[in-house]
Amino acid sequence: MQGEIITTGTELITGRVGDFNARYAARRLHESGLRVQSITILGDNAPLFQDSLTQALARSQFIIITGGLGPTDDDLTVAAAAQALNLRLFEDEALLARIRRCLEERGLPWEDRYARLAQIPEGAMVLDPGASACGFSLKHQGAWLFFLPGVPKEMQHLFDSFVLPFLVGFAAGGDFMRQRTLRLFGMSETQLQEAVNKLGEWQEGVCVGFYPNFPENHLTLTLRGQDPQTLEADLDRLTAALSREVGEVLLGPEAATLEELVGRRLRDKDLTLAVAESCTGGLICHRLTNVPGSSDYFMGGVVTYSNLAKMDLLRVPEDTLENKGAVSEATARAMALGVKEVFHTPLGLAVTGIAGPAGGSPDKPVGTVWIGLASPHGVEAKQYRFHGTREEIKALSAQTAMDWLRRELK
Amino acid sequence: MQGEIITTGTELITGRVGDFNARYAARRLHESGLRVQSITILGDNAPLFQDSLTQALARSQFIIITGGLGPTDDDLTVAAAAQALNLRLFEDEALLARIRRCLEERGLPWEDRYARLAQIPEGAMVLDPGASACGFSLKHQGAWLFFLPGVPKEMQHLFDSFVLPFLVGFAAGGDFMRQRTLRLFGMSETQLQEAVNKLGEWQEGVCVGFYPNFPENHLTLTLRGQDPQTLEADLDRLTAALSREVGEVLLGPEAATLEELVGRRLRDKDLTLAVAESCTGGLICHRLTNVPGSSDYFMGGVVTYSNLAKMDLLRVPEDTLENKGAVSEATARAMALGVKEVFHTPLGLAVTGIAGPAGGSPDKPVGTVWIGLASPHGVEAKQYRFHGTREEIKALSAQTAMDWLRRELK
Repeated sequence: MQGEIITTGTELITGRVGDFNARYAARRLHESGLRVQSITILGDNAPLFQDSLTQALARSQFIIITGGLGPTDDDLTVAAAAQALNLRLFEDEALLARIRRCLEERGLPWEDRYARLAQIPEGAMVLDPGASACGFSLKHQGAWLFFLPGVPKEMQHLFDSFVLPFLVGFAAGGDFMRQRTLRLFGMSETQLQEAVNKLGEWQEGVCVGFYPNFPENHLTLTLRGQDPQTLEADLDRLTAALSREVGEVLLGPEAATLEELVGRRLRDKDLTLAVAESCTGGLICHRLTNVPGSSDYFMGGVVTYSNLAKMDLLRVPEDTLENKGAVSEATARAMALGVKEVFHTPLGLAVTGIAGPAGGSPDKPVGTVWIGLASPHGVEAKQYRFHGTREEIKALSAQTAMDWLRRELK
Repeated sequence: MQGEIITTGTELITGRVGDFNARYAARRLHESGLRVQSITILGDNAPLFQDSLTQALARSQFIIITGGLGPTDDDLTVAAAAQALNLRLFEDEALLARIRRCLEERGLPWEDRYARLAQIPEGAMVLDPGASACGFSLKHQGAWLFFLPGVPKEMQHLFDSFVLPFLVGFAAGGDFMRQRTLRLFGMSETQLQEAVNKLGEWQEGVCVGFYPNFPENHLTLTLRGQDPQTLEADLDRLTAALSREVGEVLLGPEAATLEELVGRRLRDKDLTLAVAESCTGGLICHRLTNVPGSSDYFMGGVVTYSNLAKMDLLRVPEDTLENKGAVSEATARAMALGVKEVFHTPLGLAVTGIAGPAGGSPDKPVGTVWIGLASPHGVEAKQYRFHGTREEIKALSAQTAMDWLRRELK
């Protein structure tokens, strides 16, 4: 069963607000195994709406239409739809009575323009949620049409109460759908595609989507079938197969963020962490503290932009800075050890590098980054070379440092 | 001139992510006086894309297409468009060389699949922004087609650099368009609208756009006319009038970020800064260090999540923490003074608060934040109460602290 969504409103077509209704309906339908093949967003433009409706009827079994049901002049949906479908409009008496009652309850006077709200096409069935605005449904040329208000709260309430249960029931006997999103870091989109291609069994019946999400890559697996439990088991099996192929590049079987995964592993091992940042400028601390409860395992950090601060706060020896430079293996090691001592933590993570655009040299070009990790077992440092803008180099450095820690905590 | 937007991607049609590209383009076009009559969102579905493209060509003078330009199997846009328009694909040698160069610079090996990225329809013109992904434009049956990548940052960069200036110039037929985006903080959208309404002269010929951009509000002014210099002078005059109305709420006459403005004022006054963060967790340091050259005036910071760290690193007296608490006027003052001393800077900025979701109490609910500012003239602290999620409270606290500093440095 294929469907589509048509939303109308000048505020949508001018970009003044986002189209939350279409996204909401698309997501809920997709989760329920119903396919949306197209979303069309239009202004208050009757001829274009009529064209879109006619096209939709020719290719879809259900059509969800939102917006344009109100009492003002720019609410064109009902009249335009009736004309396009060659249906007469009639006044629904029950709906009219309901509108009068609503106005009375709110102490508002009757106005003639409200009569419009009770006009629906012949054959339509009112969808009345009780407390808020109504919509209606209509079967036409073998397709189900749903007309819903444009106010997101009203639309979503009607959608959840009437449209989705009806469509899911109607489609039952059909298939179930299950989807999983996997987050990966440390492999390009192309490498990822190759890894997926190697898993021959995936070719059959699995829908794979790739989504670059800098600095990560996301991948969705979608399956359809008769039995939801089998689908979940299949997704587990596919995730495990991918995990064998890409190893620790897979950031975990669920949609946790890298900082959540690091936090979880620290908590599991009952360890605490302190962070020393130079070129990342506080980004690692910021990301770690975005996780609620992070104060349990994250003790704090220092952002040492100047050499003086590296010496004063992190006890990096002056001659290390002088002889090896601020961006060097020795400095990264000293920073990691220093921050671990200052915060009395078993783990210290440190980053020093050149985020650019200035500050590079032939020896140490922009993007040169040293990451140090100190633990009770000693201290280690690794060199990286990142590319991109200042903000991208900061983001890649922070992600790589946290990812190293995640892998260490495995 | 009428146009439309077609965006493609399974992640859009399943509601997994919102269609930021279409909204962005629609908003920018509308601000510039160009009409978008329809937005179509499709999955990776070549026949449906071809139908939509054909329909669009029959009714629109410009068509903006995003997504599906990448190297993976689900990137169908170019081949499907060439087939629908009956155009041959050819390999653009300059584009191919550019792709090889990019790979080399990043130390990535060549793979055959990348060759796809250099295939464009005959007659197409590459849109090359230099540092990031390319798109292309094409004139067909009297309409202008623009093919842009689906990654929002890349799409927006190409759109602003090539598509919008071209369309505005083309539509103006000799008229010039000048636009300015103003950033404001510390006033609601409604208050802002009222301030704008007071400026009567704005009503004529000025197109004003309001865009909430948490935690700021942005406002765009668009003017058209024969002479670019007059337009710039008019924009200056309008900006000055708004500035008189809203004062320091206007973050500066140009599109500088708050962290850039703070940096500029520090540099002008030859002052340096250090920052102590508790609930903002490194976000202030991160934002300040996003500005190239910030190491000239930003000496560093500490993220002190634990009381021990506040004592050890910032010399906050133990009895202040015990008697007044970590979230208190006394602690904010002590942190600001402490970080100023530790980093040997004339200015110290400190934030301590409860970002939630846990940690609140009836006395100090989630969102309670103290900000301290120490300078050669003494130290001051202010209390705030913010509302929202953990990340929103962090963002509002960081923005408010930096904005206080900006106003102090006036």
